[in-house]
Amino acid sequence: MQELRQDPVTGRRVIIAPGRALRPSDFRDPDTRPDFADKSGSCPFCEGSEGLTPPEILALRPPPSPANSPSWLVRVVPNKYPALSPEGDIERKTEGIFESIGGWGTHEVIIESPGHDQTFATMTEGQIGRVFQTFRSRILDLKKDPRLQYILIFKNHGYAAGATLRHPHSQLLAMPVVPSEVSRELQWAESYFKLKEHCLFCDMLQQEVAAGTRMIDRNEDFVALAPYASRFPFEARILPRKHESAFENMPAASLENLARSVKRLMAKLDSALALPASNLVIHTAPLGEAPLDYYHWHIEVMPRLSKIGGFELGSGIYINPMPPEEAARRLRKAVV
Amino acid sequence: MQELRQDPVTGRRVIIAPGRALRPSDFRDPDTRPDFADKSGSCPFCEGSEGLTPPEILALRPPPSPANSPSWLVRVVPNKYPALSPEGDIERKTEGIFESIGGWGTHEVIIESPGHDQTFATMTEGQIGRVFQTFRSRILDLKKDPRLQYILIFKNHGYAAGATLRHPHSQLLAMPVVPSEVSRELQWAESYFKLKEHCLFCDMLQQEVAAGTRMIDRNEDFVALAPYASRFPFEARILPRKHESAFENMPAASLENLARSVKRLMAKLDSALALPASNLVIHTAPLGEAPLDYYHWHIEVMPRLSKIGGFELGSGIYINPMPPEEAARRLRKAVV
Repeated sequence: MQELRQDPVTGRRVIIAPGRALRPSDFRDPDTRPDFADKSGSCPFCEGSEGLTPPEILALRPPPSPANSPSWLVRVVPNKYPALSPEGDIERKTEGIFESIGGWGTHEVIIESPGHDQTFATMTEGQIGRVFQTFRSRILDLKKDPRLQYILIFKNHGYAAGATLRHPHSQLLAMPVVPSEVSRELQWAESYFKLKEHCLFCDMLQQEVAAGTRMIDRNEDFVALAPYASRFPFEARILPRKHESAFENMPAASLENLARSVKRLMAKLDSALALPASNLVIHTAPLGEAPLDYYHWHIEVMPRLSKIGGFELGSGIYINPMPPEEAARRLRKAVV
Repeated sequence: MQELRQDPVTGRRVIIAPGRALRPSDFRDPDTRPDFADKSGSCPFCEGSEGLTPPEILALRPPPSPANSPSWLVRVVPNKYPALSPEGDIERKTEGIFESIGGWGTHEVIIESPGHDQTFATMTEGQIGRVFQTFRSRILDLKKDPRLQYILIFKNHGYAAGATLRHPHSQLLAMPVVPSEVSRELQWAESYFKLKEHCLFCDMLQQEVAAGTRMIDRNEDFVALAPYASRFPFEARILPRKHESAFENMPAASLENLARSVKRLMAKLDSALALPASNLVIHTAPLGEAPLDYYHWHIEVMPRLSKIGGFELGSGIYINPMPPEEAARRLRKAVV
């Protein structure tokens, strides 16, 4: 029977409607094909094509090699078609009842591997660790600019998830505002903390680990679970078990377990769902905040097996035919 | 240059990034194909297949003919795979920190025409008028149940917009909650009213009609415009020029002009964008509210030419490469 669930982290409502469920193979949308990409050898993110991107901002090159030459492991470049740009300003403009600010900010691409066909499911844990280490370095560098309020790191994998290039990459958008999805989490988490004097996420972790029904995977430092109010079939969250509000303050010693958790989750999704398209985002505290007692950074992974339609856009409520308990059960069983 | 605009109706931020713009033909995504549908003659919404749907709730049958037989003009049936169901309950359940209510509600399908290949761009104005008249009848009937708080009417047209059947149809979800996207509009509009003692939408209409830069089309009763903070390329809103908070209280005399406005907008989109997939939603005041001074019902039309990616899902901020001023200019010029 259907249920209208509320996400304690955002207040977001979700309709869990297993009556609309299909078998997992039917979830597979022809658009989730990952092989839309260029096969002509002109991929701008491949090793040897460094001249096709703007000059690199950062690259991991052990052993050292000249900038913008081959032999890198992870490479960060400015987005050639930026959504926000350092050449903009933050000036406020009004036009009658309307308001805008200039599109100032930074939009970078993190090329995650020299390998054109790698994914987080197939890369080594060492390589995934380097990618997350690179995210951290970029945040630590960019946050020196006090005008920036937030850095969102996200990944579009596969055509149905909004990717336009197959070569594995993430993106970083550094902004002069805190995005609404993050503000919403901050507000709900702060209200919860005021009431209970506990971190909402820590309490949720404790409950979920004890109950087990929505658990997907865990190791010493991280837990992967199916959110109670999952918007998408097989949605997952990865959370650090120890309280920490900012991703970039994660202890270096946890990096290996984070990489393991990410690799295992993505491999389980690939195994259970036959290489789905997906989005991944890191939600972390706004820049310039002292460590927050009430907020807890985490990763959200959203397989994109179904379309976002008029109901979702018009209501803000997602309809999900796959109960997270069933999704978690299948992902726990998935062999990797 | 990029701009970070704020929608005065929801507070939602949008990045207008024309640097990311493509020519209109490039906007066309292979997934926007409307011809995904069944050609086998087994369409459950076609005339003569009435037995393939659950028994009808309402049908316009002039001249009268028996229920669930052919010769109807518009037909309303229960959704066979409902997201919410009248058999559910509204009981609140908790599971530790999590909360849900039962998935009680109603999910109906409005079959807009006996013609399998018709769209709002090709139907007669008379037929579109009958469809909106049917929406109105269903709301007036359903709102007798005091447990319902909101009725959302929406339409998915084309594969990329979430439609699974080609035959023209809309859907209606009657719910025991007010959806967050509507609450957000109500809150922003109420705050504005408290400050200015005017309806935000009326003020916006006055400004937009005077400025003209985002105007798409208008007639005596309705205005179609490109929202200042459009989330999607070629997004449009249709608003009644006279203040009215509830769609179902629209004067019957306006129905003809509403149908004309919808038909012209959809035909302009088809002409400018080569038959895009799109979503349409009606935003109206919650049920059981007295007429509201501060809220103004309207229709939102969202062509689905680009994907919703990790940035949009993770931030709540949409990146739109098409400035609404340019979209409006092209749609004004589009010949229908």
